[in-house]
Amino acid sequence: MENSRQIIAILVNNQPGVLSRISGLFSRRGYNIDSLSVCATEDERYSRMTICLNGTLSTAKQITAQLEKQEDVVKVMTFDHGNVALRELLLIKLAVAPEKRGEIVDLCTLFKAKSIDTTMDSMMLELTGNTDKIDAFIATLGSYKILEMARTGGAALERGNKVMAESEEEK
Amino acid sequence: MENSRQIIAILVNNQPGVLSRISGLFSRRGYNIDSLSVCATEDERYSRMTICLNGTLSTAKQITAQLEKQEDVVKVMTFDHGNVALRELLLIKLAVAPEKRGEIVDLCTLFKAKSIDTTMDSMMLELTGNTDKIDAFIATLGSYKILEMARTGGAALERGNKVMAESEEEK
Repeated sequence: MENSRQIIAILVNNQPGVLSRISGLFSRRGYNIDSLSVCATEDERYSRMTICLNGTLSTAKQITAQLEKQEDVVKVMTFDHGNVALRELLLIKLAVAPEKRGEIVDLCTLFKAKSIDTTMDSMMLELTGNTDKIDAFIATLGSYKILEMARTGGAALERGNKVMAESEEEK
Repeated sequence: MENSRQIIAILVNNQPGVLSRISGLFSRRGYNIDSLSVCATEDERYSRMTICLNGTLSTAKQITAQLEKQEDVVKVMTFDHGNVALRELLLIKLAVAPEKRGEIVDLCTLFKAKSIDTTMDSMMLELTGNTDKIDAFIATLGSYKILEMARTGGAALERGNKVMAESEEEK
């Protein structure tokens, strides 16, 4: 099976130590995480993690089965690529001489990025999009001097009106 | 000292097990994380974590000192609120009857949110902003039925042209 981007969403009890146990499971089993984000949800009892990794669908299913056995894991879901909205956010700071600023402004227009901080010799840009769009933006900016960047990793929800916490295949 | 939102950025070696060790340090010491995001950086040797928590500045400094002692931690930084750009991203799915859709569209205009998926009885919205803006949006949507949400946690960079990895207070 072909390697591709796998997205796993995990609803967990909002308890100390859960993140450490779950990320420990990934590293012990040798699954290399590309990005992870975790935050509170609409229900204060739960946190929601989104993990992106490069692997086959069968790897993702294997991980899902292992996660489901973990304490404090309420629900695990992998996404069909056609049916997921995944977005991540990038902040990136570039060294930009004044005469090059116009080029960056043009790229912002093309990618729908926002400039959020400018000095005489630097610019900070914000971009939201799926992983491919963020990667393409960073690659394009590779012709300039990237000073630093911070990237959130993905947040993912299934398209349509279904709700992960209520879906039928309960743990 | 007053409790407020503390933002900690950590540059770590891109190694398996680092996330588990760092999140384990927070839970063992009883520091409750509000959100965490981790992703690759412009330099493939490093990953960058952003952790938000509610606490005093002195707690944040204490955590920073402990993090600096950890294996695979390259650099730790806490931010002065006046000098940080912090952004996070929210995906939120609402139950919306057709006759209520206009109200949600108006809220999207006001908050500069985007609608990214609509069915006959639901809408999925995307919003980017600082934590206060995201919190305010969720609070406003509380009058509708929130089906589910995924939030990335923050990405943070210092304003201006300085670079965290090169700053003077090296580990």
